[in-house]
Amino acid sequence: MALIPVAEATDERLADYVRLRDVSLRRSLETEQGLFIAEGEKVIRRALEAGYRPRSFLLAERWLAGLADLLEQHPGVPVYVVDETLAEWVTGFHVHRGALASLHRETRHGVTEVLAGDRLVVCEDVVDHTNVGAILRSAAGLGFDGCLLAPRAADPLYRRSVKVSMGAVFSLPWARLEDWEDAVPMLGRAGFLTVALALTEDAVDLSEVVARVRAEAVSGRRPRVALLLGTEGAGLSARWVEQAEVVARIPMARGIDSLNVAAAAAVACYALGPAGTAS
Amino acid sequence: MALIPVAEATDERLADYVRLRDVSLRRSLETEQGLFIAEGEKVIRRALEAGYRPRSFLLAERWLAGLADLLEQHPGVPVYVVDETLAEWVTGFHVHRGALASLHRETRHGVTEVLAGDRLVVCEDVVDHTNVGAILRSAAGLGFDGCLLAPRAADPLYRRSVKVSMGAVFSLPWARLEDWEDAVPMLGRAGFLTVALALTEDAVDLSEVVARVRAEAVSGRRPRVALLLGTEGAGLSARWVEQAEVVARIPMARGIDSLNVAAAAAVACYALGPAGTAS
Repeated sequence: MALIPVAEATDERLADYVRLRDVSLRRSLETEQGLFIAEGEKVIRRALEAGYRPRSFLLAERWLAGLADLLEQHPGVPVYVVDETLAEWVTGFHVHRGALASLHRETRHGVTEVLAGDRLVVCEDVVDHTNVGAILRSAAGLGFDGCLLAPRAADPLYRRSVKVSMGAVFSLPWARLEDWEDAVPMLGRAGFLTVALALTEDAVDLSEVVARVRAEAVSGRRPRVALLLGTEGAGLSARWVEQAEVVARIPMARGIDSLNVAAAAAVACYALGPAGTAS
Repeated sequence: MALIPVAEATDERLADYVRLRDVSLRRSLETEQGLFIAEGEKVIRRALEAGYRPRSFLLAERWLAGLADLLEQHPGVPVYVVDETLAEWVTGFHVHRGALASLHRETRHGVTEVLAGDRLVVCEDVVDHTNVGAILRSAAGLGFDGCLLAPRAADPLYRRSVKVSMGAVFSLPWARLEDWEDAVPMLGRAGFLTVALALTEDAVDLSEVVARVRAEAVSGRRPRVALLLGTEGAGLSARWVEQAEVVARIPMARGIDSLNVAAAAAVACYALGPAGTAS
C-alpha cells in the first residue's frame, strides 16, 4: 500500500475529489479526466470487483482497516490519508462513510450489446441522479437485463447515481442512446414490445400488459419488453408515448396523481419481470 | 395579503425557517414550536387544502403571482418577501421552488383510527426522511389506507418527508405507535395478516402472499394486510420478523442483495394492494 498523508486542502493530488456536490463542475471535470467517484466501502469494493481500475483512494485513517485487503490488491495506487475535516473541505460535504475512490471511466457496453437482453428499462430524460441510480438497482434486482439512456438522461457513473444504485451500475449492462428520435421504433424493430409508462387517459392498466407478456411466455415465445420511463414531473415525451406499442398505467388511488419515477419503475419491473410474468 | 419585505437574515420573524438542513436543530425547534415546513407551491397548496393552518409564508418576489390565490385565502397570515440570497442564507440551502410555508403541527389520527383501514404499511425504524416520504406517496397512490410508524421511524412532517411525499402525508392517515414490542401481535389481534418484508432464508415468495390475500377476497372475506418495513441497511428487527405471521421476500436477480426500502415498499404495495389482489 502506498499510504500518503495529505494535510493541505489545495494539494494537487486531491484534484479528483474537489467539490463533489457541484454537478456542473463535476460533469466537465469527470469527462475531461475520464474518471468517476465511488463512495463507501461496499460500493468501492463492488467497483473493483467489477474490474474498474482505481486512480487513487481518499480515506480517513479509521477506514484503513476495513479496506486493507482491497488496497493491498492495488499496490501501485496512491492512498491519500486525510482527516475528516480536510475531506469535508475538499469534497464540500461530510463524507459519512469515510472512504472515496477515483476510478477510470470505461464504456463497457454499446447499445447493440444491451439489446441482446430480453427485458430493458429505457430512461428518456430522467435527469435526477438519485432516480437513475435507484432505477438501475431495481431493474437489476428485479431481473431486467439492461438499461438504455436517452441523450439527456443523468449519468449513471456520477457519484450519487453510483451510490444510490449500491453498485448495480457495475453489474447491469447499460448504454447511451445517440438517437432520441428513432429510439422507440428501433426497439420495435429489434423485437421488443415497447411499453410506455404514462398516466394518459387512454393508457391500459399495467396488468393487461403483464397478461400479454405472460401469454407470450406460455406460447413459447421469448418475451422481450422495453419499459420506457420519462422525466421527473412531466413524464415521457409525446413522441415516445405515440411511438410506443402500448401505453401502460399503474392505477392510482386516493387522489394521488403519480408515483415517483423510481417507485413506478420498481413496480413495473416487478410486474413485467420474471417474477410477475412467470407462466 | 400582509406582504412584509424582510431584508435582514437575523430578523426574528424568520425564526421558523432557520437552517432547514440541520436535522437535529429542526427536530427540537419544530417540536417546541409545534410547526412544520412545506416547500414548493404544489405541496403548500396541498397542505392548505388539507386544512393545515399556516403560521407564515416565506417567498421570493417572483413566486407571489403563483401563490396569490392561496395567500388571499389567509389574509391574516404574514407573507415574508425576501430575495433569494437572503432565503438561502436563512434556510441554509438554495430554495429551488422559491416558496416556503410554516404551518401548525397537528396530530390528526390516532393508532385506532389508522387501524380502521384494511391495508396498512408499518414502518419500523425507517430513519431516512426521503424514504418515509416516498413510502407514504407510494402507499397512498397504490391504494393502501394508512401508515403506522414505530417510535424511532423518521418524522413524516419533516420538510424533506413532506416534499418527497408530494403531500401524500396530508391525505394518507398515519400515526405513531407507542409500543414497539407489542406492535405486531396488536396488529394480529386487530385482524391483520402481518407480512414482514425481509430477505431471510425461510421467507416465502411475495407472490404466495398475494395468492393468499386474493383467495381471502374470493371467499368474500375482507383482506386485511399490514406490511412491515424495516430500517435501511439492516432491515426489520428479529422480533418483528419472528412475530409476523408471514415473512415475504421479493425475489432478487443478478447478485443484487436487496432493493431500497422505498422501492421494495412500492413493489409490495402494488402486489398486495387492490391492483395486485383483485379477484
